[in-house]
Amino acid sequence: MDKLNIRTLASQLKLSVSTVSKALRNSHEISEETRKKVLDLAASLRYTPNAYASSLRRKISKTIAVVLPEVADSFFSLAINGIQSVAKEKGYHLLIYLSHEKLADEQHILNDFQSGRVDGVLISVSGETNNADHIAQLLSHKIPLVFFDRAYEHIDTASITTNDRACGHLAATHLLENNCKKPAFITISTSLSICIQRMEGCLEALESAGIPQQSNTIIHCHGSEQEHYEQIKKVLQQPDRPDGIIAATEKTAIQLYLVCQELGIVIPRDLKVVAFSTLETAPILNPSLTTITQPAFEIGKTAVTVLFKGIEKEHFDLKNEKIVLPSVLIQRDSTR
Amino acid sequence: MDKLNIRTLASQLKLSVSTVSKALRNSHEISEETRKKVLDLAASLRYTPNAYASSLRRKISKTIAVVLPEVADSFFSLAINGIQSVAKEKGYHLLIYLSHEKLADEQHILNDFQSGRVDGVLISVSGETNNADHIAQLLSHKIPLVFFDRAYEHIDTASITTNDRACGHLAATHLLENNCKKPAFITISTSLSICIQRMEGCLEALESAGIPQQSNTIIHCHGSEQEHYEQIKKVLQQPDRPDGIIAATEKTAIQLYLVCQELGIVIPRDLKVVAFSTLETAPILNPSLTTITQPAFEIGKTAVTVLFKGIEKEHFDLKNEKIVLPSVLIQRDSTR
Repeated sequence: MDKLNIRTLASQLKLSVSTVSKALRNSHEISEETRKKVLDLAASLRYTPNAYASSLRRKISKTIAVVLPEVADSFFSLAINGIQSVAKEKGYHLLIYLSHEKLADEQHILNDFQSGRVDGVLISVSGETNNADHIAQLLSHKIPLVFFDRAYEHIDTASITTNDRACGHLAATHLLENNCKKPAFITISTSLSICIQRMEGCLEALESAGIPQQSNTIIHCHGSEQEHYEQIKKVLQQPDRPDGIIAATEKTAIQLYLVCQELGIVIPRDLKVVAFSTLETAPILNPSLTTITQPAFEIGKTAVTVLFKGIEKEHFDLKNEKIVLPSVLIQRDSTR
Repeated sequence: MDKLNIRTLASQLKLSVSTVSKALRNSHEISEETRKKVLDLAASLRYTPNAYASSLRRKISKTIAVVLPEVADSFFSLAINGIQSVAKEKGYHLLIYLSHEKLADEQHILNDFQSGRVDGVLISVSGETNNADHIAQLLSHKIPLVFFDRAYEHIDTASITTNDRACGHLAATHLLENNCKKPAFITISTSLSICIQRMEGCLEALESAGIPQQSNTIIHCHGSEQEHYEQIKKVLQQPDRPDGIIAATEKTAIQLYLVCQELGIVIPRDLKVVAFSTLETAPILNPSLTTITQPAFEIGKTAVTVLFKGIEKEHFDLKNEKIVLPSVLIQRDSTR
């Protein structure tokens, strides 16, 4: 079948392209009779207007972008479900882009949005993002942008986050209450807001308890998951290894469990573990994992709701929307 | 900042819009001197061509769609990583669409593609898909489409799948070899190719071993995860409950573990379990989970590679591309 276009309809109906176009858009300039003729033919030929042409006319793409480090992570996949639940209702498409934790990829993706490909952007920044020119540039093009979970604090726009600092404090206090003397914190970034805040909350709790920071109190993981595994293993092989771990991300918690399995370190007897995680399998791990559980679905849903206000309301100021949705600690066997 | 467009450039340079447009596309009709002037001004003003306008000119969107039931599943998130690895290299955008296992959503998504929004489609069909008119319709518009993992067999186009039937047989045989007398199979769909093939392979193995099919040999889960939980629980509360389970999907395996935890059923002592799954946590579950592990990343990578051939090569016939990448059984404690 040849590709149908508006000219085909116009020529078959012996009408001008402009008349057919107006009829398809239900313009009041067109008589009811003509409109019906056009719509009937369009329906019988299964004509669908070209999305890009419609977009140029209306100057909106009906598409929003979600930029995130990866989807192989339960937090992000739950957040996407939250975003989708609202976008679908509004008749918007989601463009999901992955930065793979790379600043260069994130810059490349955002630069591309300047051309009007999307009406708005939800972003959870990469672990490498220590420079925000690409985000500022996009905002200067008047494209609404909302941070979710991972914000970049030097950029003033809406952000939907969780109470990371308070939860870092809570996690460390929980380990201390469960008799840990040397807790450590595993992180994957020195620039990511969530990692810094969780770490700072943790360090505050240790300081309040009079526990001095050691060289292995903060374990910095970088590179691939296999590399994380080796970095964690190195720390746990030392004689003065920690007796409690707070994992800033679920991926590092999984690697930690695998390392303990290899080294014969028994959780919680030899090492207590709490992880920032929405892992569905947390209750059935060996042992079940104590988590700081983020409201991932709600964060996604709230972020997209705020973004739509920015897209649809002319004078809505995204800068006023700094929403913090609290996480909860769920104790399981890994800290008993 | 006002939105820049090609007219701004033309007026500042006192050139025609058509000349500027040709210069931006490096047309040979334009002198080197003029071309340089245009590109220099475009660079200094940070001008980016409008994506939709460029797309109309070139008649390609440089975008491919990935349609899948959900992302909160390790198979799909790994497959997306495989797809992205190739798409990025080719300079293509990924549009990720979620059908949430609903046929109506999938139809709505595919109908929208007829308008030329994307250059090609990768799809893993929903659990409800028992009618393929929407897929046939898209192919009739000459938009290349490749199935990955979940194909719809009455549609003749490329498919990248795994050896589901053989692995269903393998899983059942594995349970029988580990002393199960009454194995059962948990499935989420009566129409999905992967579920049917896994089930048929399993039933063949039981028949070969002379084990008669009982009313609870096939456990059909439907609805939400919470409903799956209740449906599995009901079967495991019966006095003649199965002594082995093959879970066709990782989601049902997780629900099964949670049910066993509640009912005090000890895996593998009271019930042996094998699941079709790429769960990263399989080795650290309680007990570690025996899996049929699919080559998820490779399936995604191969599917998108075939799709690009369909997009880029005029006479490439997608129908000839039926690729089967084998899965492997990894035995762990749940069947020991």
